[in-house]
Amino acid sequence: MQDETSLSISPALKQRAQRILVGLKSAGLSIVTAESCTAGMIAAVLSRAEGAGDLLHGGFVTYTKAHKTAALGVSSELLKERGAVNEEVVKQMAAGALKCSPASVALAVSGVLGPEEDEDGNPVGLVCFCCQKKTQNPAVLREEFGKQKPGDLLRVVINRAFDMIESYINSPTP
Amino acid sequence: MQDETSLSISPALKQRAQRILVGLKSAGLSIVTAESCTAGMIAAVLSRAEGAGDLLHGGFVTYTKAHKTAALGVSSELLKERGAVNEEVVKQMAAGALKCSPASVALAVSGVLGPEEDEDGNPVGLVCFCCQKKTQNPAVLREEFGKQKPGDLLRVVINRAFDMIESYINSPTP
Repeated sequence: MQDETSLSISPALKQRAQRILVGLKSAGLSIVTAESCTAGMIAAVLSRAEGAGDLLHGGFVTYTKAHKTAALGVSSELLKERGAVNEEVVKQMAAGALKCSPASVALAVSGVLGPEEDEDGNPVGLVCFCCQKKTQNPAVLREEFGKQKPGDLLRVVINRAFDMIESYINSPTP
Repeated sequence: MQDETSLSISPALKQRAQRILVGLKSAGLSIVTAESCTAGMIAAVLSRAEGAGDLLHGGFVTYTKAHKTAALGVSSELLKERGAVNEEVVKQMAAGALKCSPASVALAVSGVLGPEEDEDGNPVGLVCFCCQKKTQNPAVLREEFGKQKPGDLLRVVINRAFDMIESYINSPTP
């Protein structure tokens, strides 16, 4: 059923979410997200897959800098000095999410979807990702997707985050 | 641009989100969400409106009971005795979100989107909502939307949550 005030997630994206939950289950892991620019959409997409009730503990939507500090303990000095889009911020977001959740792996994302650059001058399309297991070193990624419409970038960023978590789940403990 | 792994939010739903942000701004408020069944989708929709960078601090996606307790301090005894879908749980979710965020108003939602009843036997379509300003009594709502497809219920629940927060923002302090 479609109506004026609707939203929809494509079947292919739901299938990707399902594959991630299957991977988590096989690896004996459960997930928590820490999302800035995606603002909860990654958790929302994962929640639509079967088994989410056991494997998705939840997420932290940390949209403002002040909320990143209040909810996840991201250093306010770091945010002030280096802004919200860098490798260290996503590492702290992932670590904070693991501390405040029973989940065993965290996926953190911070970037600029636009339409304008962020308050620190970071360009549209710059996004940092971090995956972190409680028992393993974090994996960090910095990508420049280039200027696109916010809705298109959101899709690209979610799919890139899904690529990353899939590969990280299956990586051997170093 | 549409592709296989896409998601979309209708223009009408984006407009509703925009109206809420305008209302928050007029009232001098900023918002945080605490979402169980909607799993971050309310924050994600609000984030797509202009001004979200200042007025949406973030949200807490608390999908499992254990994460509700870890992230928001919801009483584990309450969850064990009465399950996750009742007025007291959404009140504690909203209060917990306000404690862990600089935001001045919280919107909390917990319910059963299905396709099956929840682990405590709560029926598909049962949803509780709470709005809470730091300076005002909470408003609580319990609704039975009846059995529908999960995707349809998600849309209905988000729109009902938007109705409620709009009316609560504009309510006079008691």
